[in-house]
Amino acid sequence: MRLPLQDYLDSLHASLLCLREGSVATYIPELAKADPESFGICLVTSDGYVYAAGDVNLPFTIQSISKPLVYAAALNAQGRDAVLERVGVEPSGDAFNSISLNPLTGAPLNPMINAGAIATTGLVEGRTAEEQWKNIVAVMEAFAGRPLAIDEAVYRSESETGFRNRAIGWMLRNFGILEQDPTPVLENYFRQCSMQVTCRDLGIMAATLANNGVHPLTGKSVLPAEHVASVLSVMSTCGMYDYAGSWLYEIGMPAKSGVAGGILAVLPGRFGIGVFSPRLDDKGNSVRGIAACRRLSDDFGLHMFRNVRTPVLVLRREYSGADATSRRMRSPEAVALLRERGGRIRLLGLQGEIALAGAEYVGRRIARLCEEADSVILDMHRVSRIDASAAQVLQETRRQLGLRGLAMVYSRIRARPELERPLKRALRPDDTGYLSFEDNDLALEWCENRLLAGVTLAARVDELGRFPLFARLAAPDLDRVRKLLVKEHYHRGDSIIVSGQQTDYRIFLLLSGEVSVILPLSDGTHQRVATLSAGMTFGEMALLGHTRRTATVHADTDAECWVLEARAFDTLAVDFPRLKIVLLENLSENLAWRLHQANQLIGTLAS
Amino acid sequence: MRLPLQDYLDSLHASLLCLREGSVATYIPELAKADPESFGICLVTSDGYVYAAGDVNLPFTIQSISKPLVYAAALNAQGRDAVLERVGVEPSGDAFNSISLNPLTGAPLNPMINAGAIATTGLVEGRTAEEQWKNIVAVMEAFAGRPLAIDEAVYRSESETGFRNRAIGWMLRNFGILEQDPTPVLENYFRQCSMQVTCRDLGIMAATLANNGVHPLTGKSVLPAEHVASVLSVMSTCGMYDYAGSWLYEIGMPAKSGVAGGILAVLPGRFGIGVFSPRLDDKGNSVRGIAACRRLSDDFGLHMFRNVRTPVLVLRREYSGADATSRRMRSPEAVALLRERGGRIRLLGLQGEIALAGAEYVGRRIARLCEEADSVILDMHRVSRIDASAAQVLQETRRQLGLRGLAMVYSRIRARPELERPLKRALRPDDTGYLSFEDNDLALEWCENRLLAGVTLAARVDELGRFPLFARLAAPDLDRVRKLLVKEHYHRGDSIIVSGQQTDYRIFLLLSGEVSVILPLSDGTHQRVATLSAGMTFGEMALLGHTRRTATVHADTDAECWVLEARAFDTLAVDFPRLKIVLLENLSENLAWRLHQANQLIGTLAS
Repeated sequence: MRLPLQDYLDSLHASLLCLREGSVATYIPELAKADPESFGICLVTSDGYVYAAGDVNLPFTIQSISKPLVYAAALNAQGRDAVLERVGVEPSGDAFNSISLNPLTGAPLNPMINAGAIATTGLVEGRTAEEQWKNIVAVMEAFAGRPLAIDEAVYRSESETGFRNRAIGWMLRNFGILEQDPTPVLENYFRQCSMQVTCRDLGIMAATLANNGVHPLTGKSVLPAEHVASVLSVMSTCGMYDYAGSWLYEIGMPAKSGVAGGILAVLPGRFGIGVFSPRLDDKGNSVRGIAACRRLSDDFGLHMFRNVRTPVLVLRREYSGADATSRRMRSPEAVALLRERGGRIRLLGLQGEIALAGAEYVGRRIARLCEEADSVILDMHRVSRIDASAAQVLQETRRQLGLRGLAMVYSRIRARPELERPLKRALRPDDTGYLSFEDNDLALEWCENRLLAGVTLAARVDELGRFPLFARLAAPDLDRVRKLLVKEHYHRGDSIIVSGQQTDYRIFLLLSGEVSVILPLSDGTHQRVATLSAGMTFGEMALLGHTRRTATVHADTDAECWVLEARAFDTLAVDFPRLKIVLLENLSENLAWRLHQANQLIGTLAS
Repeated sequence: MRLPLQDYLDSLHASLLCLREGSVATYIPELAKADPESFGICLVTSDGYVYAAGDVNLPFTIQSISKPLVYAAALNAQGRDAVLERVGVEPSGDAFNSISLNPLTGAPLNPMINAGAIATTGLVEGRTAEEQWKNIVAVMEAFAGRPLAIDEAVYRSESETGFRNRAIGWMLRNFGILEQDPTPVLENYFRQCSMQVTCRDLGIMAATLANNGVHPLTGKSVLPAEHVASVLSVMSTCGMYDYAGSWLYEIGMPAKSGVAGGILAVLPGRFGIGVFSPRLDDKGNSVRGIAACRRLSDDFGLHMFRNVRTPVLVLRREYSGADATSRRMRSPEAVALLRERGGRIRLLGLQGEIALAGAEYVGRRIARLCEEADSVILDMHRVSRIDASAAQVLQETRRQLGLRGLAMVYSRIRARPELERPLKRALRPDDTGYLSFEDNDLALEWCENRLLAGVTLAARVDELGRFPLFARLAAPDLDRVRKLLVKEHYHRGDSIIVSGQQTDYRIFLLLSGEVSVILPLSDGTHQRVATLSAGMTFGEMALLGHTRRTATVHADTDAECWVLEARAFDTLAVDFPRLKIVLLENLSENLAWRLHQANQLIGTLAS
């Protein structure tokens, strides 16, 4: 199937072919040889899908677009502060080849003008110029995700005619911005500008910056996120020479252009854009390149200050313990109490990357719940990342709730270091720690137990009529059933029923202890479906002749059961059909009630 | 409950009080009177919650922070292009009071330096300077959400000593940038700088910009989103005088400072920040203000090029027609077929504000489904906004699917103009339009009908044994039941059962036609629970003695039923208990199967 964006890009490309203003750079003869009609556009998503139109695989020299990449290499080598000491980040308001040094320190105003770029080249890791060159190549290749080569003719030409840049190099040496012989640094600078790339490379390099410094196809981290922010900042204010302000105003994304006709533009988190067309305007930017980016920005609303998202979405879902109870089967008294007070348990499902604004919103929501809630569960299943400040806000919210006697617990963060680590780091020294649960059901159960804490529940039930399955059975019928019951004892850890087994028809009445019903999942894991305690029944589908067990039942504690042989019961039911009718009615009632509960939960979850 | 951010802000405020560098502006005597120790910080969320610490209600003059607000007024009056003709948007690299005019046109380089701001003041709506002044006040008050007053002493002082600004005014008149007498324009400029605001006002003004131009408390739209983007762009490159590049690099948010000690900073979509402290550094920016913003940015990761979100979240949930069938009850053949092919129906639940990147991701996901799917439902319930380009991508995806014989339909967009309008506008002239459904269930049902299109289903069932409730009943028993059946006819639109009614115990067997089961919801609306066709049963809970009807059953077409009086049946069952046992077993089986289905759907929805 053709993707709509591909069609769009093709027609955008076609519509801009008629644009023939501007002229190819001629300051070195090699650049003047470029075909002025060449034109390619690449749009690369932050997950690495490439939309391409036109001459996207034609090699050309990267020129000034090497500046942000080598600036990235310098940040990697020296750290931000050391780089800032040598090269500023203020827009100069001047053209690309202006010398623009700070009158006091001699530091170039920013790394996107030639003076700043040459100083930057001298800051790359390496004891010798050769080592530095290897690192420059390594970084540029890591951004491209493939080996790159130099255009030797352009390099020679740049080196032979770069008198102004040589002057700048010596001026930097004079001010001590360069501490080494400027000549080999200048050669590296000329070489980096002569590196051959394609329009597709520019798109992918841009997507790497859009993707927080991780190459979307190789998966390698090329640049830490903090340095990505620095590179994008300096591209925003200084990337397009003395057109930078207008570019940000009109097109609204960090970008860098080169005199061979390339433009690299970044929409953080979304897209990387590469454009190539050699005809330049009087500020040295590709005419079709600017036109293409402007159309992309306008048509798709890509300006970074438009369509900004609000943090409300971090809260994906909210429901209460009255909308959905845990799968622990409870006594009728407990069920009634939970129906009445279940609203005091709140489950908040969060999602996405949680930064401060999202955590602040959630924390404020929880503070509002304070009066009406007793416990809060944060379901973190859909959270992909949580930053340090957001973790602090959540943990502090939890601590404050704790001081008021309320509980806040986490669900589904286990074995997820990307969530557990920031949450652990955010603990204050005086904080006693936090509770987390494998799943929402266990978290809900824990909160329900808190609500039920004052309520005494029977630890032992051995009156047949108190089992809901046998409710409404007349005394003589109860006596008849009782004669069929066999008492069995299980030890903690025993499997009472094993999933998949073809067994005899047996119904179990739990007299004391606790058992869990566990379902094997298709992915090989298991899920607890219910926990039962004294007075509850399991295996009752044997009444319908279901013999293959679909779940495993496991003794959580030592347990005592009455076991009823369904076959023996059916024999009895031939003489006393009323017995079977009441049991089936009780079974249906129970199923109908569970279906009603399930449908309620579906209504809550589906909204 | 104390909110964690409030504690943070209090301690940030306390920790910066020791910062006593810099000095209060003295170029007019009135400013020199400010208490150098005053210090307030305000953080306002984009939904209007105010976190405040220190002197947040102390009035001071807004000074240069009026520039972006009056620039907003000029954009409102003239539109972007006309404003750009008079005032550029390039950073000057010079100090705030530099004249910095374009040597060719005389246009000030940007509206954040005095020359640009004076030109901007002359562009506000109004035939006379008085009318212009009213509009300046109106815009500033709309941003603050409250009436504002002038500090007359500061105004007089500014007016009496503003010689350099008067020179600039006449220079602008000379170049024709100002077409009117500059003197009253200058008076308006001096007045706008003398407007009294508080730190809280700055925070709320900033939050209005963060909230796409809508005041978070008054709810009024102060500035269209496109102009918000322009104002923030120019603040980004030029807002902090010749510190703008470093500010964006280090703190990473559009901002504007004033010489009285105020700073207004915006984190689009998230927060507005206001800080006030009168001691200034040598570039004219508040020392504590910069320190506070830097700490906020570092501690909370607020730099706009950090923590960028990926668009993947737009896809909230995905499941297939095999995970959940529609609530239309189907014949056993149809159920079997849907179980086999239901995976060919895909439901994609979208969420949030959908811009290009989100729509592209969804469109690409759908294109990948192409081979394995027959129809796609886009559930738009949680979508808050869809922009024009995103609507185009979705509609084009739908059109392309249509060309391949696949269907893509929308669910839950009805009566939501914010979604319907862009989707309608995005239709190509040759497009035949799109289908949308009230809810997912109706959409699922439509897709199922497509899958079942080739399958012929019985239009009429009048063999008792084919009703699942009567399956496995022996022939003599069937005869006995048949004698109790009464045939009833209903017209389209009739209510067969009415919710809440206490009725006789009647079970209905549908011989022909279709009926819907409708549940009244607590909010007064109704929800269709199921649609039944020939061969299906309803009201069967009467078997358990349930007499209060919980749902309404409504004839969608003319319909024919067999009605079984439960009481008459129970009388029969006394002699033939086997009859009742089989019916109860069938009922339990059906309930168990529906419970199983419901639990499966819960598993899908809860992930």
